[in-house]
Amino acid sequence: MKKRVAILGATGAVGQEFIVSLKDHPWFEVTQLAASERSAGKKYIEAIRDPNSGIVKWQVGGDVPEYVRDMTVVSIDQVKTNELDLVFSAVESDAAREIETKFAKEVPVISTSSAYRYEEDVPILIPGINDDHVDLIETQKKNRNWKGYVLPLPNCTTTGLAITMKPLYENYGAKRVIMTSMQAISGAGRSPGVSALDVTDNLIPYIPKEENKVRIETAKILGKLKDGKIEPADIKVSCTCTRVPVIDGHTESVFVETSKPAKVEDVKHTIEEFSEHVSVQGLPSAPKDYLVVHKDPTRPQPRIDRELNDGMTTSIGRLEEDQIFDSGVKYVLFSHNKKMGSAKGAVLLAEMLYKKGKL
Amino acid sequence: MKKRVAILGATGAVGQEFIVSLKDHPWFEVTQLAASERSAGKKYIEAIRDPNSGIVKWQVGGDVPEYVRDMTVVSIDQVKTNELDLVFSAVESDAAREIETKFAKEVPVISTSSAYRYEEDVPILIPGINDDHVDLIETQKKNRNWKGYVLPLPNCTTTGLAITMKPLYENYGAKRVIMTSMQAISGAGRSPGVSALDVTDNLIPYIPKEENKVRIETAKILGKLKDGKIEPADIKVSCTCTRVPVIDGHTESVFVETSKPAKVEDVKHTIEEFSEHVSVQGLPSAPKDYLVVHKDPTRPQPRIDRELNDGMTTSIGRLEEDQIFDSGVKYVLFSHNKKMGSAKGAVLLAEMLYKKGKL
Amino acid sequence: MKKRVAILGATGAVGQEFIVSLKDHPWFEVTQLAASERSAGKKYIEAIRDPNSGIVKWQVGGDVPEYVRDMTVVSIDQVKTNELDLVFSAVESDAAREIETKFAKEVPVISTSSAYRYEEDVPILIPGINDDHVDLIETQKKNRNWKGYVLPLPNCTTTGLAITMKPLYENYGAKRVIMTSMQAISGAGRSPGVSALDVTDNLIPYIPKEENKVRIETAKILGKLKDGKIEPADIKVSCTCTRVPVIDGHTESVFVETSKPAKVEDVKHTIEEFSEHVSVQGLPSAPKDYLVVHKDPTRPQPRIDRELNDGMTTSIGRLEEDQIFDSGVKYVLFSHNKKMGSAKGAVLLAEMLYKKGKL
Amino acid sequence: MKKRVAILGATGAVGQEFIVSLKDHPWFEVTQLAASERSAGKKYIEAIRDPNSGIVKWQVGGDVPEYVRDMTVVSIDQVKTNELDLVFSAVESDAAREIETKFAKEVPVISTSSAYRYEEDVPILIPGINDDHVDLIETQKKNRNWKGYVLPLPNCTTTGLAITMKPLYENYGAKRVIMTSMQAISGAGRSPGVSALDVTDNLIPYIPKEENKVRIETAKILGKLKDGKIEPADIKVSCTCTRVPVIDGHTESVFVETSKPAKVEDVKHTIEEFSEHVSVQGLPSAPKDYLVVHKDPTRPQPRIDRELNDGMTTSIGRLEEDQIFDSGVKYVLFSHNKKMGSAKGAVLLAEMLYKKGKL
Repeated sequence: MKKRVAILGATGAVGQEFIVSLKDHPWFEVTQLAASERSAGKKYIEAIRDPNSGIVKWQVGGDVPEYVRDMTVVSIDQVKTNELDLVFSAVESDAAREIETKFAKEVPVISTSSAYRYEEDVPILIPGINDDHVDLIETQKKNRNWKGYVLPLPNCTTTGLAITMKPLYENYGAKRVIMTSMQAISGAGRSPGVSALDVTDNLIPYIPKEENKVRIETAKILGKLKDGKIEPADIKVSCTCTRVPVIDGHTESVFVETSKPAKVEDVKHTIEEFSEHVSVQGLPSAPKDYLVVHKDPTRPQPRIDRELNDGMTTSIGRLEEDQIFDSGVKYVLFSHNKKMGSAKGAVLLAEMLYKKGKL
Repeated sequence: MKKRVAILGATGAVGQEFIVSLKDHPWFEVTQLAASERSAGKKYIEAIRDPNSGIVKWQVGGDVPEYVRDMTVVSIDQVKTNELDLVFSAVESDAAREIETKFAKEVPVISTSSAYRYEEDVPILIPGINDDHVDLIETQKKNRNWKGYVLPLPNCTTTGLAITMKPLYENYGAKRVIMTSMQAISGAGRSPGVSALDVTDNLIPYIPKEENKVRIETAKILGKLKDGKIEPADIKVSCTCTRVPVIDGHTESVFVETSKPAKVEDVKHTIEEFSEHVSVQGLPSAPKDYLVVHKDPTRPQPRIDRELNDGMTTSIGRLEEDQIFDSGVKYVLFSHNKKMGSAKGAVLLAEMLYKKGKL
Repeated sequence: MKKRVAILGATGAVGQEFIVSLKDHPWFEVTQLAASERSAGKKYIEAIRDPNSGIVKWQVGGDVPEYVRDMTVVSIDQVKTNELDLVFSAVESDAAREIETKFAKEVPVISTSSAYRYEEDVPILIPGINDDHVDLIETQKKNRNWKGYVLPLPNCTTTGLAITMKPLYENYGAKRVIMTSMQAISGAGRSPGVSALDVTDNLIPYIPKEENKVRIETAKILGKLKDGKIEPADIKVSCTCTRVPVIDGHTESVFVETSKPAKVEDVKHTIEEFSEHVSVQGLPSAPKDYLVVHKDPTRPQPRIDRELNDGMTTSIGRLEEDQIFDSGVKYVLFSHNKKMGSAKGAVLLAEMLYKKGKL
Repeated sequence: MKKRVAILGATGAVGQEFIVSLKDHPWFEVTQLAASERSAGKKYIEAIRDPNSGIVKWQVGGDVPEYVRDMTVVSIDQVKTNELDLVFSAVESDAAREIETKFAKEVPVISTSSAYRYEEDVPILIPGINDDHVDLIETQKKNRNWKGYVLPLPNCTTTGLAITMKPLYENYGAKRVIMTSMQAISGAGRSPGVSALDVTDNLIPYIPKEENKVRIETAKILGKLKDGKIEPADIKVSCTCTRVPVIDGHTESVFVETSKPAKVEDVKHTIEEFSEHVSVQGLPSAPKDYLVVHKDPTRPQPRIDRELNDGMTTSIGRLEEDQIFDSGVKYVLFSHNKKMGSAKGAVLLAEMLYKKGKL
């Protein structure tokens, strides 16, 4: 029997990614699709149809999967939580917190919003990176007297940084991390998203609130769960986030001061070892390679590397020793903001929870 | 009487920028244009005409200035050094070193190539930043027994970094500088330059040899001239250079660990003071503002800021304290690689030399 | 004494273009700036400042001209028509018709909106092309019992087509015109304008309502004023309008079936003659060249040709005989949608009216 | 037993597309890979490795297929024709004609070059469009006394036009066709291909020789084979070809004067019927839909429609009656220049020949 799953915000861009990520899933079955009042009562295919032009607004590749075309969309209020095992929430509005709270009282919620990310009893989970933080779920349920729980994904810029830092931090320690991101325009969403007038032949060296999110989330994800709460990793993170004219996928230039000497070949080996034995291997949405270290100095490149393993692989390139610290490395990473950094990463998280018996 | 000037490599993109930068110049008069054998003997307008299509290959804005249209191009061998006070060399080929050597024996040479940059008796001058290094010219002439001398410009990625670091270094000290550049495609030249297939919806996290150049040149420029040689500044520089789909102008994300506490408002004031009193004020090619510090967090942006003062202003934005160091700041800079970082910057340098009586 | 001018919609992108186009104008003086209630009572510089970020939203090149910085913006209702000689309206909303009507009762109105374009007693004027249609103003005033009148600009895609067709139509006749446009993203405005996600590495073969506008307006502009109304030119126009990833300037590929034989050299000569003697020569905003015919087959190109004469020149290239008609030509044109096709074209129109004593 | 196939020019971009298109092919087996002397004797993976950087220059998506990695590349002179049933030639140099001649004496050659396109006894075949022209092969072999034959693909801009015109021409006749193309940068190849400086925020309204090719090839493809030669279709074609900043896929805006009345709904039906019954249905490389007619007026768009059926579907949109002719239609088409318009289209052609017993 598959777990019954609802997608909240199913008509938006992230909701559509969820629909694709859950197509023919071996363990999960999408049984309810919820969106705003405006869509309620319509078949999915009609709910995403532009009323004026008659155009189906399907924003991800390929066709609308058959399995959702005729499913009736309900309003978020109408979702039947008693017929659900899991909720994926792609609600981004200010209402996210209220909605997630309501559902988490009854059923597990995995969310792409930041509403709950910074609460003490809420872990920010990246499957393969901090699986042990799962135990905080019990504390959360107890604290809040909920039957379910809420698990927010990290910000999509944090994802790549935290994933690549994990093997470094564990093996070499990390005192300081300095990062400059070159983020894709799809990261800004679609309503209205980035204007072509702003980003053509241009870049914008500012993404509101992003830098602070990365700073806090990275330390939390790499932190230790102790006595029912997460002690953030003792890493100082500074970053500058920029928007560049790239459609999908975030590139990040990273400089790390390590605690122990870190020779390039060793670091490479460490990362590849980590990737090979990462916990998520074998899960339906896990990539063949969790992390890839490129020798080619021109890689990673967004247009080439975003396709790797359907966007679930994090790529590293330009790995070099950094001479300005007593010990340290520099590298460039690439992470797909709409795949591992969003809906499909959320599905991978659900798969890990399923395996752990948390659903 | 104006100084008589030759442009070597006058038909190429950088040569054309020289022609524009020297149009109607109050102190300099272009009396000789030199290029390859293929162009020799032709009028300039014919020399840049594509023989197959008949198209005039003028690669910079506006029309070919009247003053060069009918000037006869000579081969580099035919240049009459005895009728010259100054040579601007835009020769980029492997021949650059040999050519510069030949001319420097007779006459001052300002060059955009890297051929002589790392010689002990050759300063890398940025007017307004390290004018006192001019004195190394005498050592150079003596050492080499030349009548002239050679002055190479820095790499265009170094220019913005060295300019913005100068007031910081002088006032707060600088232990470590970590920089990620997002460089314009025009920086890679035109033969063949960056392919549209490589950089559309993409970025390339690697520019061969660039990072080492920036590291060495920045320390040299900010260094001290002592006992006939330059002692590099004691700054550790690490950088990652990337190519982004932007036509003109390099953006750099910079993190600086300072020696002394650096409050944002003080740093801003320091930079503005420096800009106001910079030595080049009043020179014909000097911008109204040498440095600008933006309050608007979305600035600098290449498409907006490249136009500022015809590309001669270096822009700073996102100036913030950086918490990960005991003291430090982070900022984003923008510098026009084809203006201040190239031909027009070279003309500004010539103006400084003129004022100092070195021409 | 300069004519007193108001700009309606002064805070928007088109309004800002008006402000730049009217800076230091020899005949016109901007005495009133009007915008929405939200801006009313503020100094101009404050009215365009983003309230959250404090950023001045100046969307055109250079700085906000001094002459408007401290001018107080009024609401459109507060504009004093009795202290005005002319109104430039950049109001694009549904309210355009109502607003233009109100003002035209008192004072001449030149508008960039389409509200009045298709009225029988309203000419669509392009200075230099159909100046004689100016006489329809009297009919309009009489019909409507207005003291002023309203003159709408054509759609920016019509402008280039009508300008280039004029000498062809007059000298060779034109039976059929087939045009495909490749239009700039700035043509779609800024609220929200074209999303970068839609137009990066892409083009969109559809611009709502555009094709019909071009069809009707071109025939009207090239038509004859007779007995108090315009008889549209007997030209069949068909077109497909597309949006391409170009920032400014519309390119159009045109095929014309002429009534008389049209040899390329003759047509070129005809166009150049027309340009040389065009009526607007000498007006303050008129370009040195009204029309340019390129020999270089790679021209016109948006990035190169948009700068020509500050965007007021219409460029023609690829002029060839078209063998598929008994007689005909094909060519590619370029017209700057934000300059000749918008505010600065409107100022040129005002200059023509001034000369004719219509203001 | 599979047919034994060689790829000439196997290391280039088109050669790489052939390798991907022939992977796991049910009927063809790549037994020889040929390239220039420089590559001869190397394993394929080494032959495409950059000698300086060590980087594997694989220019198409995904990884280098296993089946070619260790295959030894030979020089074109070393290809053993007696061990071959078919040659795919991706040689683009001036040598193409000589090479194709040499091979066609022994074995069938399918080529992406234009060397033989305009010979009287050489058909330009598009599978599904003019399959009956296959019979010209016998004439060709007899004329030239060859054991093999040569079949050139059309220019990639012709492909989409000829495919979409076929059902129109057959059912409604076509007097005149006027087309403006907006072609992808990948159409210009990679050595050096289009410079990013030329096409960023820009378009180029000229592609050398392209327009004449489209004109001649379209009439030839739609022509009739009679008495051992092809009588070109009596269609007048005029076109303007432009380059736009799109990576893959050519868009064409088409206006057709038909001989008979052509109502949009009928035309749509005609095209869909044609697509449904097209001869190539069922061939291994044939798309599910040969032609698609979009209702959505914003389609086709390169970035969305290039993915359709791996680039083998030709998309039509904006289908409307064109009022300027007595009868006619206008539409926009999209065709993938690197798939249906190149290597994979060549494989589809080979499949048709196989089925017809011509291999």
